[in-house]
Amino acid sequence: MTDPQQAAEVLNQALPYIQQFQGHTFVIKYGGSAMGDPALVRNVIRNVMLMRLVGISTILVHGGGPEIDKWLQRLGIEKKTVGGLRVTDEATMEVVEMALAGRANKLLVSEIQQEGGMAIGLSGRDGDLLVGEPISEELGRVGRVIEVNPAVVHMAIDGGFIPVICSVATDAEGNALNVNADSAAAAVAAAAGASKLILLTDTDGVLEDKNDPASLISKLSPEDAAEMIASGKADKGMIPKLEACLAALEGGVEQVHLLNGSTPNGLLIEVFTDQGIGTMLTPW
Amino acid sequence: MTDPQQAAEVLNQALPYIQQFQGHTFVIKYGGSAMGDPALVRNVIRNVMLMRLVGISTILVHGGGPEIDKWLQRLGIEKKTVGGLRVTDEATMEVVEMALAGRANKLLVSEIQQEGGMAIGLSGRDGDLLVGEPISEELGRVGRVIEVNPAVVHMAIDGGFIPVICSVATDAEGNALNVNADSAAAAVAAAAGASKLILLTDTDGVLEDKNDPASLISKLSPEDAAEMIASGKADKGMIPKLEACLAALEGGVEQVHLLNGSTPNGLLIEVFTDQGIGTMLTPW
Amino acid sequence: MTDPQQAAEVLNQALPYIQQFQGHTFVIKYGGSAMGDPALVRNVIRNVMLMRLVGISTILVHGGGPEIDKWLQRLGIEKKTVGGLRVTDEATMEVVEMALAGRANKLLVSEIQQEGGMAIGLSGRDGDLLVGEPISEELGRVGRVIEVNPAVVHMAIDGGFIPVICSVATDAEGNALNVNADSAAAAVAAAAGASKLILLTDTDGVLEDKNDPASLISKLSPEDAAEMIASGKADKGMIPKLEACLAALEGGVEQVHLLNGSTPNGLLIEVFTDQGIGTMLTPW
Amino acid sequence: MTDPQQAAEVLNQALPYIQQFQGHTFVIKYGGSAMGDPALVRNVIRNVMLMRLVGISTILVHGGGPEIDKWLQRLGIEKKTVGGLRVTDEATMEVVEMALAGRANKLLVSEIQQEGGMAIGLSGRDGDLLVGEPISEELGRVGRVIEVNPAVVHMAIDGGFIPVICSVATDAEGNALNVNADSAAAAVAAAAGASKLILLTDTDGVLEDKNDPASLISKLSPEDAAEMIASGKADKGMIPKLEACLAALEGGVEQVHLLNGSTPNGLLIEVFTDQGIGTMLTPW
Amino acid sequence: MTDPQQAAEVLNQALPYIQQFQGHTFVIKYGGSAMGDPALVRNVIRNVMLMRLVGISTILVHGGGPEIDKWLQRLGIEKKTVGGLRVTDEATMEVVEMALAGRANKLLVSEIQQEGGMAIGLSGRDGDLLVGEPISEELGRVGRVIEVNPAVVHMAIDGGFIPVICSVATDAEGNALNVNADSAAAAVAAAAGASKLILLTDTDGVLEDKNDPASLISKLSPEDAAEMIASGKADKGMIPKLEACLAALEGGVEQVHLLNGSTPNGLLIEVFTDQGIGTMLTPW
Amino acid sequence: MTDPQQAAEVLNQALPYIQQFQGHTFVIKYGGSAMGDPALVRNVIRNVMLMRLVGISTILVHGGGPEIDKWLQRLGIEKKTVGGLRVTDEATMEVVEMALAGRANKLLVSEIQQEGGMAIGLSGRDGDLLVGEPISEELGRVGRVIEVNPAVVHMAIDGGFIPVICSVATDAEGNALNVNADSAAAAVAAAAGASKLILLTDTDGVLEDKNDPASLISKLSPEDAAEMIASGKADKGMIPKLEACLAALEGGVEQVHLLNGSTPNGLLIEVFTDQGIGTMLTPW
Repeated sequence: MTDPQQAAEVLNQALPYIQQFQGHTFVIKYGGSAMGDPALVRNVIRNVMLMRLVGISTILVHGGGPEIDKWLQRLGIEKKTVGGLRVTDEATMEVVEMALAGRANKLLVSEIQQEGGMAIGLSGRDGDLLVGEPISEELGRVGRVIEVNPAVVHMAIDGGFIPVICSVATDAEGNALNVNADSAAAAVAAAAGASKLILLTDTDGVLEDKNDPASLISKLSPEDAAEMIASGKADKGMIPKLEACLAALEGGVEQVHLLNGSTPNGLLIEVFTDQGIGTMLTPW
Repeated sequence: MTDPQQAAEVLNQALPYIQQFQGHTFVIKYGGSAMGDPALVRNVIRNVMLMRLVGISTILVHGGGPEIDKWLQRLGIEKKTVGGLRVTDEATMEVVEMALAGRANKLLVSEIQQEGGMAIGLSGRDGDLLVGEPISEELGRVGRVIEVNPAVVHMAIDGGFIPVICSVATDAEGNALNVNADSAAAAVAAAAGASKLILLTDTDGVLEDKNDPASLISKLSPEDAAEMIASGKADKGMIPKLEACLAALEGGVEQVHLLNGSTPNGLLIEVFTDQGIGTMLTPW
Repeated sequence: MTDPQQAAEVLNQALPYIQQFQGHTFVIKYGGSAMGDPALVRNVIRNVMLMRLVGISTILVHGGGPEIDKWLQRLGIEKKTVGGLRVTDEATMEVVEMALAGRANKLLVSEIQQEGGMAIGLSGRDGDLLVGEPISEELGRVGRVIEVNPAVVHMAIDGGFIPVICSVATDAEGNALNVNADSAAAAVAAAAGASKLILLTDTDGVLEDKNDPASLISKLSPEDAAEMIASGKADKGMIPKLEACLAALEGGVEQVHLLNGSTPNGLLIEVFTDQGIGTMLTPW
Repeated sequence: MTDPQQAAEVLNQALPYIQQFQGHTFVIKYGGSAMGDPALVRNVIRNVMLMRLVGISTILVHGGGPEIDKWLQRLGIEKKTVGGLRVTDEATMEVVEMALAGRANKLLVSEIQQEGGMAIGLSGRDGDLLVGEPISEELGRVGRVIEVNPAVVHMAIDGGFIPVICSVATDAEGNALNVNADSAAAAVAAAAGASKLILLTDTDGVLEDKNDPASLISKLSPEDAAEMIASGKADKGMIPKLEACLAALEGGVEQVHLLNGSTPNGLLIEVFTDQGIGTMLTPW
Repeated sequence: MTDPQQAAEVLNQALPYIQQFQGHTFVIKYGGSAMGDPALVRNVIRNVMLMRLVGISTILVHGGGPEIDKWLQRLGIEKKTVGGLRVTDEATMEVVEMALAGRANKLLVSEIQQEGGMAIGLSGRDGDLLVGEPISEELGRVGRVIEVNPAVVHMAIDGGFIPVICSVATDAEGNALNVNADSAAAAVAAAAGASKLILLTDTDGVLEDKNDPASLISKLSPEDAAEMIASGKADKGMIPKLEACLAALEGGVEQVHLLNGSTPNGLLIEVFTDQGIGTMLTPW
Repeated sequence: MTDPQQAAEVLNQALPYIQQFQGHTFVIKYGGSAMGDPALVRNVIRNVMLMRLVGISTILVHGGGPEIDKWLQRLGIEKKTVGGLRVTDEATMEVVEMALAGRANKLLVSEIQQEGGMAIGLSGRDGDLLVGEPISEELGRVGRVIEVNPAVVHMAIDGGFIPVICSVATDAEGNALNVNADSAAAAVAAAAGASKLILLTDTDGVLEDKNDPASLISKLSPEDAAEMIASGKADKGMIPKLEACLAALEGGVEQVHLLNGSTPNGLLIEVFTDQGIGTMLTPW
């Protein structure tokens, strides 16, 4: 369908980006509504595999709110939230873990295998990859990540596998915790020495004016991001994402991107073309 | 509690067994009612870790019928069986996978991590570890394993992890299949070059007279096992287990053991003492 | 200039080709008038580097007739040919080697380095890479390759370098021989276990009717190629190229391509798009 | 003879010790009257091999006073001692070396081989493992170790062998020196980065009151040990042993144990059970 | 022809030198009139190979003034010098590179291969081995080395090849520069961590009195060499050589030797016998 | 003392031999009266080290009859021989092992260390290197080698050590056996894949006429050697040596040399000069 000469030209234009990123590690956080559309899922998976094929070590981190909600509903467990966070009692936690580690995770793994790649699904309990602690008594099993043991991730990458990590952590007693996938991705990115963290979200990026979709900010310094959080200029839903971005940058990640996960080939456009999309946070 | 001299004597008696098995691979199939008792679970896990520590590469394969039943019931999905096998429609399959890969598997992984070991949970979809095909249209997503790709298992072992595998396979299109855990363990044992397969069951082993618990057979040749299946001398529930044993032996596994999973330290007694328990199948 | 979505689509379409060829070795024979145009040279070099970056081990083999002719003329050495082959007396051979190993080779190496790659220039005398013998007394130092020692090529590839080989061989006494670059490339491809040999030529490929440029043959079996040589159906200039192709196929190379070196991005189009160009010879 | 359940319990209790010590290096100094009883020798050897099998790198260092005395007597060479040390003239030194390197050493090596292990006998002259200097003119060839070259020991361990080292050193001119086995073991332990040094002696350990066998000290700080030497509270024969212990601790060894070599399975009890025996010196 | 006992004695005397230099890297700069005599060339090559065979990593660096002059003359290009340096316009540079990289280099490579060794010819453009910049506008393409990338040299040595490097560098744009071979050798020696740099010249070494051939200095400190340059005591032709020597010493090379390249076996005599020849510069 | 040019010439002449033998393994059996002269010992050791330095893996095997006799005499143990073989009762065996493993072996090891090499002394009991069985009841502990386990030898060579092996074997129960050093050397040579076995003896080689020292045979085929044994043409003392030679050739050793151990530098002359000495047996 594409003109061959034009196609070749595109490949040539990708050359410097491949040279630049070969040998680097990228963490891609996948989630939100984009995970519900099989065509979009396949597209993201193929984008991730292409990065891997040209020598970028890619790590996929995912949540799965809609999947969790579906099972809670089927089981007749009521969903409660406090300050935007899901109150996670023991019964809910069981469902969260099953839906994430036993369902969403395996679907992504399977998709990669079907496309000819090699994937391994991981929860934060495997090899104590994500160790956390509860945030508050009120929120129950909702946790924050306090330690990352990336050995299992490095093993997977060195063995030729794409690690697919769900946002479930273990506490010190080995019990599961429900952690925010953006924060988990940031923690993994820092611990694995990633140079890029890419958050696929339901919006196009950070807006200068939260009420004006046309006011997308292309590039944001950590200072400005911190200011947007402090001043309330940032959208309420965007605040935890910006906090995850800042945590990643503090952990040594060079660039953090917020992209709309529904944009077809958004990952490739961001990584391999001159045309950046979404919002990039970087100290430089 | 134990007299130190006696303790040391026990360790000395274990010496030749450690020498004999060091560098070997053992597959342990864990399941049944023994998985419901936390103390028994911990005991099995510690037994497995001790084998690993003395240089035996151990692989854990598990099912989880009770866990599945519990979730089906909660979800109000009726359980149907045909010829002793669970009829697995799509809805049931989702629950099977969640209960096994997202719940039972992670509990075992977590138990190993808590005891100071390193574990990684795997489903048959990870790295296409277990590839299967449906057995019959009637049984829906019930499958048989037709190919094992042990790369992910070897990677885990070489990396110092105990692989914990649940009995879910992938079909050629990447969809999940519900496979028998005994058969899966036999297939993994053959593919991974294991010298021993140990099936932890709810009975003490194979009985000469299926109605007489005292008629336990210590050692059984493949020929005699085949004869017991053919003649109906074997208990109905024992037949698929014997078939798995025979498949493992045909695949090059040297010894297959049937032990009662409820016997404390059954694994250690079988492997490290002069006193065998349960039934051993071996061509020799 | 390209639309980002379209660009990403192109990259996605390249995915299966990258998967297919990763880990393979390709030998590209570069030469003819295409070497005289700096823009074309840069284009070919970038194409070669892209292959390398996506995991294809690329080896460049080149001649350099025009460069040789220029220096012979400057030195006042008369060019003589017999049957289309350059009669190469000792004085001519010195110039051939200098022009190829000392000039054309270094320009290609330098071009790769400038584009950010790593290259190493090799003559057939380095590590006895190409060992030959004279073809006839009449033709003087014109030789045929009788042995390839690919150790130096494997070392370069393993070390991350693109080997750039000029068509000069050594005889048993260590003296230089002028060998045909197409034949040399075929010999290297066979010895290095290449799966593809790509000859960049001054024509679009093999013509069904040598007088009709529109009669390009897309795919040719070795049998048909041999027949075209035997029957004289092939163009006189095409015959040695077809012979080199056949030699490569006999040496185990799976596919040999004849492309027009003047087509921009010809290599990429052939390798990474659905749209083949030129003529492909393959036994399958 | 042991009850299987009890046996398994013992193995389970050893688990945390194996986890703790796996990958560590232990130096065991063997000697004294315990070397004269074949049953005790076999017991010690099996204890050492068990440690090795569970992943502890074990190094055996030995003397052999009784063997030396026997040969001196047969040869009619008079034994002279000064301050408890054997005056070693050239003639005596020849016998010392033969008895240790040619006799006692080979018997221990052979014992390990017979039990299914792999051993290599070493004297301090092999690879200049132990370099020493004479202590005084009066004592002749009695030396102190001034340098350890552990390359040969590391090679043996990495190659799967248990190194068995006799207490003969080389001086700068390559001539043999008679060194104290306790000191040699301490020097080897420090140089090889051992975490434990275990001295098997003829007593149960250090006594609070040297005349009261019941006053055994379980744990001793380096400071208290130094004080016992300085104050004369320590038994005369114990002083050089305590000095060796202190030297090892100064060299970075974490724990030094004094055990009675005649206690069957003393090594196993000390290392793998909750029940320590003998005296342990440690800075902690 | 040599008496065997005497021959063996010589080999024995070489033993300590082999022990001393095994594992070291030596850079030998070869050039001048000694390159014109085939017997001398062969002799130097065999000397270099012997060093290599006894475990010294040898790197050959060469120029080729006479070869360049011959081709300039044939091409009717006038030779101009300023301050003893060849003015190198673009036309001259082409000839310099061809004569060095395409001719002199390949002859040395071929000589090593003929003697049973393995060699690889390198120019400073291969792998950006030698990066330079022009010295002055007046001198055109005459350059000085400002950076050495020794990866390609280490790869060659590790692969069992003797690297043979001609004195052509690349500038930042990838164009060739004509660099002094002594300086290039010094830069390579420093970058490759060589312990010795040996300059084969047309004189016997440094003279105390530049007009008295009998006043050869055996050993020279860097301070005295600097003084000889500053005071004009050194011969004009010797000054750049001394500067190269000083640069090597500053770069960490331990010893620099100036030997007469026409002395048969000069390299062996210097390296493997008690009898030093030529002048040695060393800080010690 | 040697003229430097002549010295260099010798080194040059050694070049092809070094090329030929680099990477090969040579076993040198050292023994007899040549071991009694310190200057000769040092000479042999230096010869062996030179071989090692130029890349030949050397293994030293030795006996030590005179040392044994000395200690037997001192201990008042009567020496008895049957058919030229030492009758070795238990008491004698103890002395044999001590004299060889504890004395002669350590002296050779020490000599190598003093000359700057690295050596490790081995008896046949180390790592079950030499496993034997008694020859006859009459001869007591005199044995023949029936199995060689060269792991310990390969480990030593790979680790940079020269293994020095004394002619003591172990029987199946771990007890020492007195084996012939020539036979032991032949067995080691075959097991270690040596290309040369060199027996240093008290004679110049094999004589055509055993009564005429001038009738030395330079080269002998295995057939002729067998014939000399069968016909009694060979000297009685030479017969076991010839048998050892034949055993080595049958075991795949390419060349076996009989040299006079008293000839200074005999090893170097034989290996590195055109001038062979002694007798060479080879199937070619």
